Amino acid sequence: MTVTYSRRVADAGLGTFSHLLLRWRGSIYKLLYRELILFTLLYYFFSTMYRFVLYEDQKRQFEKLSMYCDRYAELIPVSFVLGFYVTLVVSRWWGQFESVPWPDRLGALVGAHVRGVDETARLTRRTLMRYANLSGLMTPEELRHLEALPSPHNKFWVPCMWFVNLALRARTEGRINNDVALTAILAELNNLRTKCMTLYGYDWISLPLVYTQVVTVAVYSFFLACLIGRQFLDPAQGYPGHDLDFYLPVFTLLQFFFYVGWLKVAEQLINPFGEDDDDFETNWLVDRNLQVSLLSVDEMYDNLPAVERDKYWN
Amino acid sequence: MTVTYSRRVADAGLGTFSHLLLRWRGSIYKLLYRELILFTLLYYFFSTMYRFVLYEDQKRQFEKLSMYCDRYAELIPVSFVLGFYVTLVVSRWWGQFESVPWPDRLGALVGAHVRGVDETARLTRRTLMRYANLSGLMTPEELRHLEALPSPHNKFWVPCMWFVNLALRARTEGRINNDVALTAILAELNNLRTKCMTLYGYDWISLPLVYTQVVTVAVYSFFLACLIGRQFLDPAQGYPGHDLDFYLPVFTLLQFFFYVGWLKVAEQLINPFGEDDDDFETNWLVDRNLQVSLLSVDEMYDNLPAVERDKYWN
Amino acid sequence: MTVTYSRRVADAGLGTFSHLLLRWRGSIYKLLYRELILFTLLYYFFSTMYRFVLYEDQKRQFEKLSMYCDRYAELIPVSFVLGFYVTLVVSRWWGQFESVPWPDRLGALVGAHVRGVDETARLTRRTLMRYANLSGLMTPEELRHLEALPSPHNKFWVPCMWFVNLALRARTEGRINNDVALTAILAELNNLRTKCMTLYGYDWISLPLVYTQVVTVAVYSFFLACLIGRQFLDPAQGYPGHDLDFYLPVFTLLQFFFYVGWLKVAEQLINPFGEDDDDFETNWLVDRNLQVSLLSVDEMYDNLPAVERDKYWN
Amino acid sequence: MTVTYSRRVADAGLGTFSHLLLRWRGSIYKLLYRELILFTLLYYFFSTMYRFVLYEDQKRQFEKLSMYCDRYAELIPVSFVLGFYVTLVVSRWWGQFESVPWPDRLGALVGAHVRGVDETARLTRRTLMRYANLSGLMTPEELRHLEALPSPHNKFWVPCMWFVNLALRARTEGRINNDVALTAILAELNNLRTKCMTLYGYDWISLPLVYTQVVTVAVYSFFLACLIGRQFLDPAQGYPGHDLDFYLPVFTLLQFFFYVGWLKVAEQLINPFGEDDDDFETNWLVDRNLQVSLLSVDEMYDNLPAVERDKYWN
Amino acid sequence: MTVTYSRRVADAGLGTFSHLLLRWRGSIYKLLYRELILFTLLYYFFSTMYRFVLYEDQKRQFEKLSMYCDRYAELIPVSFVLGFYVTLVVSRWWGQFESVPWPDRLGALVGAHVRGVDETARLTRRTLMRYANLSGLMTPEELRHLEALPSPHNKFWVPCMWFVNLALRARTEGRINNDVALTAILAELNNLRTKCMTLYGYDWISLPLVYTQVVTVAVYSFFLACLIGRQFLDPAQGYPGHDLDFYLPVFTLLQFFFYVGWLKVAEQLINPFGEDDDDFETNWLVDRNLQVSLLSVDEMYDNLPAVERDKYWN
Repeated sequence: MTVTYSRRVADAGLGTFSHLLLRWRGSIYKLLYRELILFTLLYYFFSTMYRFVLYEDQKRQFEKLSMYCDRYAELIPVSFVLGFYVTLVVSRWWGQFESVPWPDRLGALVGAHVRGVDETARLTRRTLMRYANLSGLMTPEELRHLEALPSPHNKFWVPCMWFVNLALRARTEGRINNDVALTAILAELNNLRTKCMTLYGYDWISLPLVYTQVVTVAVYSFFLACLIGRQFLDPAQGYPGHDLDFYLPVFTLLQFFFYVGWLKVAEQLINPFGEDDDDFETNWLVDRNLQVSLLSVDEMYDNLPAVERDKYWN
Repeated sequence: MTVTYSRRVADAGLGTFSHLLLRWRGSIYKLLYRELILFTLLYYFFSTMYRFVLYEDQKRQFEKLSMYCDRYAELIPVSFVLGFYVTLVVSRWWGQFESVPWPDRLGALVGAHVRGVDETARLTRRTLMRYANLSGLMTPEELRHLEALPSPHNKFWVPCMWFVNLALRARTEGRINNDVALTAILAELNNLRTKCMTLYGYDWISLPLVYTQVVTVAVYSFFLACLIGRQFLDPAQGYPGHDLDFYLPVFTLLQFFFYVGWLKVAEQLINPFGEDDDDFETNWLVDRNLQVSLLSVDEMYDNLPAVERDKYWN
Repeated sequence: MTVTYSRRVADAGLGTFSHLLLRWRGSIYKLLYRELILFTLLYYFFSTMYRFVLYEDQKRQFEKLSMYCDRYAELIPVSFVLGFYVTLVVSRWWGQFESVPWPDRLGALVGAHVRGVDETARLTRRTLMRYANLSGLMTPEELRHLEALPSPHNKFWVPCMWFVNLALRARTEGRINNDVALTAILAELNNLRTKCMTLYGYDWISLPLVYTQVVTVAVYSFFLACLIGRQFLDPAQGYPGHDLDFYLPVFTLLQFFFYVGWLKVAEQLINPFGEDDDDFETNWLVDRNLQVSLLSVDEMYDNLPAVERDKYWN
Repeated sequence: MTVTYSRRVADAGLGTFSHLLLRWRGSIYKLLYRELILFTLLYYFFSTMYRFVLYEDQKRQFEKLSMYCDRYAELIPVSFVLGFYVTLVVSRWWGQFESVPWPDRLGALVGAHVRGVDETARLTRRTLMRYANLSGLMTPEELRHLEALPSPHNKFWVPCMWFVNLALRARTEGRINNDVALTAILAELNNLRTKCMTLYGYDWISLPLVYTQVVTVAVYSFFLACLIGRQFLDPAQGYPGHDLDFYLPVFTLLQFFFYVGWLKVAEQLINPFGEDDDDFETNWLVDRNLQVSLLSVDEMYDNLPAVERDKYWN
Repeated sequence: MTVTYSRRVADAGLGTFSHLLLRWRGSIYKLLYRELILFTLLYYFFSTMYRFVLYEDQKRQFEKLSMYCDRYAELIPVSFVLGFYVTLVVSRWWGQFESVPWPDRLGALVGAHVRGVDETARLTRRTLMRYANLSGLMTPEELRHLEALPSPHNKFWVPCMWFVNLALRARTEGRINNDVALTAILAELNNLRTKCMTLYGYDWISLPLVYTQVVTVAVYSFFLACLIGRQFLDPAQGYPGHDLDFYLPVFTLLQFFFYVGWLKVAEQLINPFGEDDDDFETNWLVDRNLQVSLLSVDEMYDNLPAVERDKYWN
């Protein structure tokens, strides 16, 4: 269920984006609250340990450790790694959306070139489009056929070949009455098929696991270091930059919010065919495609309003 | 109403871009002045509190808080997040412009291949182009037809099918006199339709809300921290870097100007079909397309100046 | 007049790029010297004020102001904003070059398919190519025709329709002797037209003014801050980092050189159809295109050297 | 053997990516553990030297050296160079995947247009697809033929020409019964061939060695400097930032993990046709392509389930 | 002579890239050693001056100057400018490789569609392909023809027109026996021509000189500042960060190595048609293209191994 908010941000006014901060569905809060609670709990666990449990000399040790962690956590190039990684994930995400196959173009050609209003013609057109939708709407006969084909590999291409064969039969029977039209239909089918294979490729060839692991470890270890390094130390000890005990580590939580939020963008987009709020609505898409396909070639066949003069005529 | 300034910057001279700083329409000032005023008011509210309201020891606390905010605000990776985010928004914005459908190519083919000067031929050509413009210029008859079609989904593709059907009728009646031309016309129509679907996709699949929220929170929280962290502290206290009370926080305001201005670029471009100064002029476009379409296939049909020798002849 | 230096840098040797530093035409010096002089004058104006005009206590105030400016000028993210902005401008610049229409492909098809050596045939071929060049080489008759067409919109597409009509006439008269060829010619014309429209789009839809203004203000305000913040302060006052009075602010000038130079790259490329040293040579292009077009379809028509065995024959 | 984990990250939940941290195959640990062990050993070698072997004044010298290394190691722009380099390698990697040739489109056309069920027809179709797979499945006769052709250059294109010749023969014999179909088949073959040449180009034109060397030297020299610069110095000496002897240089090891891990991403992707865990499964691909090709044009020829009404009929 | 090392890095093992560090041809050492020697000499010149020539108070002045240079050299955004610039150059470099024209596709079509085994047919096919290679293999007659054509512009397109004319003649004589084939051949020729024009465009429209100059000046001035700013100062003076006299400025040399090496990547790729180790092998390419072209259409014409059953038959 994609979260669409284009209409909310059509005009740039006073703090346009601020309106978006109050949404829950698909929001960063919904994605992040569990991690944030966990992080906060751990932070206060260490904080309580430091304030109430440790002996004095243990406190001194902890303070040294804290300052050590704080200084070196800065060395982890979180922004850099995340910036490049998220950019990559976003470009793959959009690439996947662009590869989603739409049968509309094919429907127009099938509706145009496969002529006839008798039942066989209708059946031909509808069946062609059903094949093109590759979907689970097979008749039992077709399923038997598909399973009878001996091949260990993915068979998503078989309905494509049925389409081709049926189109050829229509050409032979004269329902498609010229070779240019047939070639155009087959080319369009092939484009659809190429899109399916591209999607298949995106699924098969994930972003290298190594990259994802490097990014995840970078972010997680940064915040592990922050759990200790960003504790408020006793102001009485006079450590530079530790002259205020604020109890609530606002900026560390904000940083957690940004960096882990940025990582969440990647987590959500890396496979846009799941059930995330922002994933593509695959089921809706399959339904819509089948319905529009059948409408295009059946109800809409030779269906035309009366052709009348428009209001600018002369 | 797009703001075009290409002509103003055709030549790079002394401070070419400085001329652009004095424009109001579509300018950063127009977009930003409300936020800037709000930020300034809040800044002086805190400033007044600090200078005239707080007791001495409260002042000391405030000063510590201020320095704490100042130090940690640096940790918010505003430039980084904004740089990557705005780049993404700008590339989507241009992608949307490139997907704006222009019926010109189709008009050329319809004008070329649908032959005849009688009323039916004219009507056919004009109606084809009207369908291709998909626009609100339907006749009541057509609207009735459209609404009669049972489908819960967006019906923007229905006029496309009418186009196809009418083109096929023209082929059958011999107004389009060969199959190659018919196929070329249908291919062009399909290209137009693909562009519409791409635009529809850009609208449907917004940039993930999470990303926009992360960026917005980063920018806003940075400036919230600045409201306190960039106050001028009493020089008498001798805090490092606080030996000058300047009253006007020039650099903080400049930073606000850059960062929020950069965010405004995104706010303005994220949906280029609104009413912003820099949005695409959709209405103008629809008008222009319809007019050029009708002119192309009607007034311009077989309209040709006398073919004469040019001045380089021999 | 584009500055071409590919040949100078064909081989990477000792300091290959250093040879490029000594060129004037199209160089950074030529673009920048006025700004640099202005900046230097202003710098020395403040320097003189500080050294010779101000009273002692005013000097102390100025020194504080200077260090304040120096510290906060660092906060302006000039590299970041410039890096992303210039990358964007450069990609639009090359996009525009790729959209420059070349009639060569069309010329080949017109020369191939419009048959005949009589005057009408020659006239047809030449006129087709003239229309395709859309240029100011109209005959008075054609201009009258163009102006007679009632439309408030840009009419650059009208010669395209003339092209289409003339091509259709040639087909009817049998000069183009098959439909495949006609369709190929019209498709090529449409490609040319699409390129023109892309260029028109680049011109119409500038980069959002807001972005350009943000970048310009960032760079300018950075250097305004440097005018004061990078003054050499009296070493006798013992300010850290101010123990040397060097009179010439070498590094500030270098920084000016880089950053403003980088901005100049953008200023020069944002509209590549002006008169800058590095702009596309539009007039040359129009001339070349017309000449090559006419040569292709007229002098070169059926023009073929004797076909002889090549030297590798058997 | 590509490592696919899309399904594991379909939904963004609590620490989605954390599940990925526990995998071994294709993981960063598997790639990195040898380097990490080596680095750790070297680190403790220097540590032992400093703690137990050196004399007091040698220790003082080592401490100076260590702080010198630590300060200057920061100057090596590792993140920057790696960020740009890895982005480049990743885009080439995906470009290579997109260039992997799939014969599916061609199979559909050959199955469609090469008509006939006699043995010669079958043989023609199968042989066409074998040629298109360019693979080692040559008959001895074909191999003799290939070797007989005198050319010093790569002959991968020769089976393409056989394909062309056989297709032409099929056209002459009427098995392909129209010119449009033949042209479509040849166009599709040419697309396949173009993809092969693109892959060949990616292999032939590596990323410039210089770039790879610069990146490698940057990373390696950074960690050589860290071997000395990140040693824990004697807290008793009171060097700033050295008030804690932690024995285990956690953050240096983490940095090693990120940076060398990032470099490993590049090492793994720079040639995706090897035997790495994440490389493309070339052998599987060749098998699959041949099998699907033969099935498409032979078993599937005119193979069609009974065409029946679908469940939405009326 | 391109340096190909894909095979060396097929598998990611222990320090895969480290093997690449030992190569000389095409290496960073070969490109850089002259600059490095020069830089080192200059460094030691200043070093000697400081240590042995200057008087004591001159030394104090030099030390101040050195620290001044060191501090401000940091302000030069070398990584940033280089990162964006090199990315741009690399993308142009690959764009140029992708525009290198290969006549293979055209050869397949010419070999397919230009029928006949008599000498004229062979001559036609060979001559067509020779024209398509545009190369210096003109017969004297052809050269005379070319020079006779009056035009001040580049005439690389003239052999294309000859190709067109010869193809048309072949169509008229029936050697090409249908219009679809002729159109396909001309389309392919036009694609080849477009690639040539793209290459011509890359050569004509260099990257703006300004950008290259900005980058070069940034890198060079940074290292000029380093010559002074990175000198080892007398530890006895107790300047912070100068408590060790190391004689060899390891890290400065490393930085020189990275930054100038990065610049060298750009120097080498900015014109890939020169004689650098990593440039495209243009001569080899021209030879290969001509040979493969002639083989494709002559020796390979109707050349087909006996068509036999493959080993998977049934």
